[in-house]
Amino acid sequence: MLSTAISTAAEESTETSMKFTSLGGGHGLYQTLVAAKLSAPDSITAIVTVADDGGSSGRIRRELGIIPPGDLRMALAALAQDDEHGSMWAQALQHRFGGTGALAGHAVGNLLIAGLTSVLGNEQAALDTVGELTHSQGRVLPMCNQPLDIEADVSGLDDDPRVMRPVRGQVAVASTPGAVRRVRLLPEQPEANPDAVAAILDADLVTLGPGSWFSSVIPHLLVPGIVDALNSTDALKVVVLNLSAEPGETQGFSSERHLHMLSQHAPSLRVDRILVDGHILPSSTERRYLERAAQSLGAEVIFDQVRQRNETGQASNLHDPARLSEAISAIYQSARLAD
Amino acid sequence: MLSTAISTAAEESTETSMKFTSLGGGHGLYQTLVAAKLSAPDSITAIVTVADDGGSSGRIRRELGIIPPGDLRMALAALAQDDEHGSMWAQALQHRFGGTGALAGHAVGNLLIAGLTSVLGNEQAALDTVGELTHSQGRVLPMCNQPLDIEADVSGLDDDPRVMRPVRGQVAVASTPGAVRRVRLLPEQPEANPDAVAAILDADLVTLGPGSWFSSVIPHLLVPGIVDALNSTDALKVVVLNLSAEPGETQGFSSERHLHMLSQHAPSLRVDRILVDGHILPSSTERRYLERAAQSLGAEVIFDQVRQRNETGQASNLHDPARLSEAISAIYQSARLAD
Repeated sequence: MLSTAISTAAEESTETSMKFTSLGGGHGLYQTLVAAKLSAPDSITAIVTVADDGGSSGRIRRELGIIPPGDLRMALAALAQDDEHGSMWAQALQHRFGGTGALAGHAVGNLLIAGLTSVLGNEQAALDTVGELTHSQGRVLPMCNQPLDIEADVSGLDDDPRVMRPVRGQVAVASTPGAVRRVRLLPEQPEANPDAVAAILDADLVTLGPGSWFSSVIPHLLVPGIVDALNSTDALKVVVLNLSAEPGETQGFSSERHLHMLSQHAPSLRVDRILVDGHILPSSTERRYLERAAQSLGAEVIFDQVRQRNETGQASNLHDPARLSEAISAIYQSARLAD
Repeated sequence: MLSTAISTAAEESTETSMKFTSLGGGHGLYQTLVAAKLSAPDSITAIVTVADDGGSSGRIRRELGIIPPGDLRMALAALAQDDEHGSMWAQALQHRFGGTGALAGHAVGNLLIAGLTSVLGNEQAALDTVGELTHSQGRVLPMCNQPLDIEADVSGLDDDPRVMRPVRGQVAVASTPGAVRRVRLLPEQPEANPDAVAAILDADLVTLGPGSWFSSVIPHLLVPGIVDALNSTDALKVVVLNLSAEPGETQGFSSERHLHMLSQHAPSLRVDRILVDGHILPSSTERRYLERAAQSLGAEVIFDQVRQRNETGQASNLHDPARLSEAISAIYQSARLAD
């Protein structure tokens, strides 16, 4: 009985004494934030890329000149309270208009964020207001307070494979038939959102990824203030690798190439752990390559089971929030014990 | 001292023992609902026309096949709680997107109502959810649960002034250069929203108007269930006349012609009071004409000062909510004392 009581107390303290900050965008960040909610930290902060130019988000950005709201909206939906009220509002934010008219494909939450941004005078006030609406379990911050663009150097678009061509825009980069070699932000070296910097410095745990590597993960590393904050924080920094290479963006990329890409874009970056699903690297040779790539970031590789499986046990390409939450909590707990 | 105490008690009882139901649409209903909030009744119900086909509302209606949300949104904005939270949300609902793109002119509240209608499966649930958001001081109900169209018989569009031509659609009717003789709903004799019928039957006070006579006021009288409810309720029924004829819709119409139009479209209709701004009918001859027209509806005419004035004392064409509230409360109070 005594051991049970102690273990419960230890679990409780693990579950409640953590400030959790997640960097990313899109579906990868969504899954990470759902995982973060499950580990019930003291606070959750989502830091979100602002270079989307496609779909509803891209249309709103071009029409109204604001930060593209789509990734911010998804993060807010992920963080909505898990009760009837929060779930209904999360569903409403994510709802896309049907039909074949001018509204088709617009997400209600994007329009709400855009409207509140006009009324309240800034996007952060709009995001916080939507957060109140959903009884949000965390705060959502854009990584920069201005809309940005991605431009990539792409090879393989020319007869001569050594020729690099610039490809501009998140949609264009994500769907290029060539091979992306490097990306940059336009304007380059943008100013970081001071609230995002503060949330990294104040965190106990920071995650980067999973997500579209060139459009949701690496953009954070192209903001000098974000990299400085990552290198200055006392937080445990965990990179969560994708479960598979993405068609288009990272077609054919190995896991260690994903890590090399981080170093290439932010040579000074140091992180602590790389979380990898055990099934994607079955051979010990592959694991050794990955561990060597991790060392160049100052990080240790952790293999765990974090992949979502459907009812028949078939693996999907999404992280399972419960498994991801357990794996991240275990990494954090073991690092704390080692301190 | 005693008389003051009695008068205060009487005022308090006047202010708090009334179920207030308002029929209308557009700006006229907006002003009436703000007035209703000021008289702090037990409950406020807005019953709103659903035949709008213009602007943001018309585009949403055509694209998504739902009840046009614009007049419903305005009523919700009018009923928002008068604190910082309610005012901010009212402003957000009313905010129209700028720019020159596909979103230009769409009201945020229209899009929110449309999105929530899809998510929740019906428009009433969407309206009630927006009402929760604004801490609404009342409930907003569409007069019918289907979108309707207005069609008018219009003269003066032909060389021969006796020729009547049909003009279809609220915008077309409101802007015809001809003279509107009669309007009908398409489909004709639609089923009333049962909640609207119940709110009329349950009310202590029902107002009809002010507002665009052919597109916001008379449509209610073309729904048989609404007219039956108006003729069955024990509520005091007050028609609030417009402050001026409207260019287009009722150009050149006298006050008594406004009343004749009600009788013409709903011959069985009986109401109790006609509230008229005293300044618009200075001559006793005009007043006698109006009183005679009111008698055909079974109503008595009340002259009061209900017009909004700007800082320099110049009269506008809007009702002043505070004066309207006082005038309606006085009518209600005096009718109750007479009982």
